[in-house]
Order: sequence, then C-alpha cells, then structure tokens
Amino acid sequence: MPYYIGDVIKDERKLIARTPEKFEASGIHVLLNRKAEEVDGEKREVRLENGERLPFDVLVLATGAAATRPPIPGLDLPGVYSLKSLPEAVAIKKAIGGGGAKKAAIIGAGFIAMEAAEAFRSAGVDTTLIQRAELPVRRWDPEYSAMVKEELQKHGVHCMPLTSPRAVERGASGGLKVVTDRGEVEADLVLVATGVKPDTFFAGQLGVAVGKTGAIAVNFAQETSREGVYAVGDCCESFHRVSRSWTSLPLGDIANKQGRVAGSNIGGAPLLFPGVVGAQSFKVFDLEVAATGLTEEEAKGSGFSPVAEKMTGTPTARSMSVGERLYLKVVADRASGRLLGAQAVGRKGAVSRINLLSAALWSGMTVGETAYMDLAYSPPFGGAWDPVHIACQELLRKL
Amino acid sequence: MPYYIGDVIKDERKLIARTPEKFEASGIHVLLNRKAEEVDGEKREVRLENGERLPFDVLVLATGAAATRPPIPGLDLPGVYSLKSLPEAVAIKKAIGGGGAKKAAIIGAGFIAMEAAEAFRSAGVDTTLIQRAELPVRRWDPEYSAMVKEELQKHGVHCMPLTSPRAVERGASGGLKVVTDRGEVEADLVLVATGVKPDTFFAGQLGVAVGKTGAIAVNFAQETSREGVYAVGDCCESFHRVSRSWTSLPLGDIANKQGRVAGSNIGGAPLLFPGVVGAQSFKVFDLEVAATGLTEEEAKGSGFSPVAEKMTGTPTARSMSVGERLYLKVVADRASGRLLGAQAVGRKGAVSRINLLSAALWSGMTVGETAYMDLAYSPPFGGAWDPVHIACQELLRKL
Repeated sequence: MPYYIGDVIKDERKLIARTPEKFEASGIHVLLNRKAEEVDGEKREVRLENGERLPFDVLVLATGAAATRPPIPGLDLPGVYSLKSLPEAVAIKKAIGGGGAKKAAIIGAGFIAMEAAEAFRSAGVDTTLIQRAELPVRRWDPEYSAMVKEELQKHGVHCMPLTSPRAVERGASGGLKVVTDRGEVEADLVLVATGVKPDTFFAGQLGVAVGKTGAIAVNFAQETSREGVYAVGDCCESFHRVSRSWTSLPLGDIANKQGRVAGSNIGGAPLLFPGVVGAQSFKVFDLEVAATGLTEEEAKGSGFSPVAEKMTGTPTARSMSVGERLYLKVVADRASGRLLGAQAVGRKGAVSRINLLSAALWSGMTVGETAYMDLAYSPPFGGAWDPVHIACQELLRKL
Repeated sequence: MPYYIGDVIKDERKLIARTPEKFEASGIHVLLNRKAEEVDGEKREVRLENGERLPFDVLVLATGAAATRPPIPGLDLPGVYSLKSLPEAVAIKKAIGGGGAKKAAIIGAGFIAMEAAEAFRSAGVDTTLIQRAELPVRRWDPEYSAMVKEELQKHGVHCMPLTSPRAVERGASGGLKVVTDRGEVEADLVLVATGVKPDTFFAGQLGVAVGKTGAIAVNFAQETSREGVYAVGDCCESFHRVSRSWTSLPLGDIANKQGRVAGSNIGGAPLLFPGVVGAQSFKVFDLEVAATGLTEEEAKGSGFSPVAEKMTGTPTARSMSVGERLYLKVVADRASGRLLGAQAVGRKGAVSRINLLSAALWSGMTVGETAYMDLAYSPPFGGAWDPVHIACQELLRKL
C-alpha cells in the first residue's frame, strides 16, 4: 500500500483539500501534516516525528529544494518570507491583498524575485529590490538583464544594485527595515529570494550518492544509487542533453516529468527520463524573458568553442509590426556547428522562439539546419525569415 | 552580368520603387516591366516580348504559381480579382479603402480567402464567402474548420457553403453579381481565391522535368533536370521530410529559402535545401490556425499507419487561464511511434505549438520523446505539462 507523507494546507483552496480523498479513493494512504524524521535504508522503514514507523519496499524522495537564506540576523521576524511553501504564498497574498502591507523589500534578483516584484506592484505595494550584483537575472547576458531592469523601473520598482543586506530589524512604525551596506529600506514585508538548494537530508541518512551539483544522483529511470530508492524533482539531478552532463535545474515542469517517469518504473512499465535542455522563462510586467541550452560560459565549461550572434528583430512580419522588438541571441559550437543555446527578450514572441529552439537543441541540430527550419509562416506571427532563421543565418557566417 | 526580369509597381510603395537601384548598385541589371516570352535551352538565351535577346549561362526560374480560375464566364469583368500580383493587391486595397466597394464576394475558402475576408470586414465591407465544400480550410479537420467558420460568422461574414458559382455578371446598380446554383450574390468586388498551380510555362519550353505534383522537379541544390537551370519557389517542388517524397507547397517562406540556396550554389558555395515539414498558419480575426506535417489521410498515402489524438487545453497554465482554449491534434505512426503531424486552433498559442512541433518533426522525433520534451515553462506561457506534452502523452497510450 503506497503512502504519501507531507503537509497540506486546508484553506480556501478547495482543490488542495480535496486531493487527499482522491488519493485515498485510489488506494493511496495520505498522511497529512505529519513529518518524516528518519529514513532507515537497512530496515527499509520511515520513522515519523510522532513515532510511527512505515515499512517500504520502494521509496521516492521528492523533497524538493530549500530556500537559501543569507547569513544575516532577523530573518525569523514575522513579515519575513521566502516563497517556497504554499502556506507562505497564502500568507504573502493575504499581506499584500488588504493585509496592510504597503511597502515590500525583495532580497535577491532571480526570476522568483522578478515574478514577486510584478505581483507586489500589481497589488499597489511600493517595492524595493535589493541585490548584490549590478543587474538582475544573471542567467541572461547583461544587455538583456538591463532590459529586465528597465522594465522593473518603468513599473515603479526601486532597484538597489551592488547592495548587501546586513540584517532585518523591527522598524520604527511597527514595520520592518532591511539594513544594508547602502542604507536602510523600510518594509512591511520582506521576501528573501536568493535561490534554492536541493534538499538532500534523507539522501544523506540513506547514504545515497549526491552528484557534483549537490543534488541527488539518479539514473535515467530516476533511481538513486540505492536500489528501490528513487528521487524526483528539485532534490535530484537531470541529464543535460546539450552539455552531456548531470545538472541541477529546480524547475516545476522537470519535476513533473521525473515524477511520472519514476512512477512508471515503480509500477512496472520501464521508462527513461530523456533529460533536459535547460529551457526556462519568466514574465516580468509586459516582458517575456526566456533562455534555453547553454550560455557561452557554460558552453566553454563543457568543452565547446562557442560562437554567438545577437539580433534585433520583430515578433511579427515587419509589415505588421507596430514597433515591438524581439531580441534574440544564439550560441553554437565552432567545431561542430551544433546549436548550443539561445536567449530571448521581448514584449511578445520570446518564449515561442525559445521553445522551438529547445526542440532543435533536443535533437542536437546544427545552426545550418536551424537556419533553414520550416516554420508556420504567416505575417501576423513572423516574417518569411523568422528571427530564428535570421540569427542562425548570421551565426553561420561566423562559423 | 546577372539579369532580373519582371515587373514592378511604381506607386506609393517606395520600398519597391527603390529596389531596382539597389540591385543595379550591386551590378545586377534589372529589366522592369518587360516580359520574357521564350527561353531557348539550346542557344541558352531568353527572348523578351520586345525582341531583345539575353544570353545566359545560368537561369533561375522563379515564375511562382498562377491563380487557378473556375471555368465560369465573367471573370474578366472589371472588379473581379485574384490576389496573386502586387497591382491586384493595390487595386483591391483602393477599392475597399474609400473606393466605393461596399459588398464583396469571395469565391473559395482556402487561407487566402480567410485573410481576405478579415481584411474586407475590417474595412467595413459586407462580405460573402462562396464555396463548394461544406467547411472552409479543408487542410484542417472538420472539427477545426467548423471553428474557423464560426469565427467568420461571428465577424459578420456570410458563408454560402455547398455552393457552385456559375458566372459573374454585371449587376443592376452598376456593380457585379455572382450567379450560383443557390442564388445570386451582389458584389462591388469579386475575389477569386480558388488556389494556385505552379507556373511551368518556361520549364515546358526548356524541356525540364516536371514532377508528379505538377511543379518543376529539382534536386536538393534547386537545380532542375537541365544543368545550369535552377528553379525556386512556388513553381518547383520541395522535399517533404516527413513523407519522404517531393511535394508542392506554394508558401512564401519556402520560396525565400530556396532562392537563397539556389543563389549560394550559383555563386559557388554549395548548399542543399534540407526540405520542409509542411508547417503553415493563418490568422482569421481573433483565431490562430496552424498545421504541420501530414494529415491522417496524407500519412496513410505515405505508407504510415496513423493514430491520432485530439485534446482541448489552455495556452497558459490553467491557473492563469481566463477561459481561452487551445485545440490541438497530434498524429503519429503506430509502427515506429514517430510523430507525423499536428493541427492547432485557438485565440492564442496555436502557432507557437505548431512551430515547436515542426522542429520535432524536422528531426524525426517520436511521440515518446515529444511527450517529455523540455520547454520553457512559466505559468503565463503554459502549464508544467504543456498541451503538446498532454496530447503526446495521451497519444502514447494509443500506440
């Protein structure tokens, strides 16, 4: 009889409250609001905090990633959140939606920070972004990150770059303040969004191998180094089809797929997870920001000789364009001509280009092939030469 | 010295008027408003209507496709157009933009007819669509074509299905009327949009091979059966990577690519045109309509055993959806599991899915691979399981 152990929030979100019953109806025991404390790999049992012991033949580690927190005091004060669990999300939503939060500070500038900044501003909350680096979302080239920053500022987000937080303290008027090396920021709500790291606590207890990335090592069936113990999602590694190496990419769509693959194998239908190409995206106000494959730096690190091309195009045919720009960068390997990665930013059409380039990366296509790939041309959706073609044609000349 | 022979319109479209000078500056003679009458493959010369003779070493046939016209009287009356040349487009634009055309009839229901219907309605012109079949755009499944019809009707287009035109005649009040087997349609403007066929006139004179499709046969370098004679665009065939056969697909993006490939070969840099997968799309009012690869029927004709799956999803994550639907059909081969084709319709997101599936088709991916393909997931742009994944997962179960 399979068990699911975890917590659940029972509030206005009825769907979630209904889920346990659905599982129970399928013969799956759901143990809610209980916490696994120890996993014994020899006895093959899970010990819960309340003393209960659950024997297992097969165990799936789906422990996710934990939010990292800078080593500063005050992060345990009420009003300080990370955005890692559903209860926190609900609390934040309450705080900005009539809960009295008028000012928010976000520590960090990854894409969770970007999405939170948009949500805060949409709720009319005065928002300050505090980050150590000069530009947000450093997965992207500075030229593109600068566009993201401009979009933040255009929508009233105060950006404090090159700034290190020192502490969160109680403020004068009942709120909080973030003390930094560049002054203090008052806030009713502080969101710490400085990234995540794989939760390998039980993997450690079980003695299963952890990869160089710090995430649990798995094979293509999602099984760990210990037979019958599987790992899926943010806590484990994924095989990167472009770099041909194991990577840690804590993204929800990957987690979903890995869960399905593990379940299929456990259920007796062998299935391999074919890996990832590093496709990712976020929306910040009116901007689509997306990337796939390797950056130039990552490509070098993987032994390639990257050559890149940046182009500015239009998401529709030029004749139908009303001034929107699509910025697209493509990276290829000089030796093999193979496409290695891409980045795109624009008010529209950025994600769709990155998705089709992800499909090209998936199959190991060369830039030469990508430059002549057949797309569904129609002026409202792109030119006869799509930005993808143009960028790849230009890149071809450099190879 | 290369020659370009063709006509050009010199009017408000300054870009076109400037082009000849740009060519001349690059050392290319542009012979405008002159007509080639005969091509002599033995003497290797082109004879113009005005008696001029132009010798050639290399000849490129870029004669395009001619609009087909139903065998009915009256198509030479003023006010009857096809939409194949720039002068016609300009004349139509003039007629509906203050030129007095209040009523239009469109004969045919392919995607040129769809785009014209939208343009006419946007100019406030009362528009009637006359077609022999029951539903428009028969490349798509009846279920999807019915959505297109609904969209047309929602925007005030009168649809006359199962109707055969018999003649175009002068109407009572100075306009025209289309006489059909189901009554008469008054119109100030009649657009005949019943399709195109490859213009192989000079190919016939030269004795170069014409394929089974009726278009000029070429090799992957775009060269015809006669050395030094190339063909590009709507007049010639393209290799279909899914059916592995030569096909005739008169689409602007394919023509552009083939022109570039021929030019590269002629200029001394060998280059092969890698073929097409049949990607195509159009917009009609607020609807995106797209397809790629083979239909089930085409798949059968190519020796595959097609299995198909239709799904209704949302273009964004369900949590961010505001009721938009994305309709997606995927087709695969039962024996090999290979993806063979797809169709999509929706207010948004249809073209982007078809483009990424085109990239999957390009590389001959299986449905199993496509069902786990890594895409740039973010709720505003799709679910953790994109409609593409869901459709392919469902299809997998049927294989």
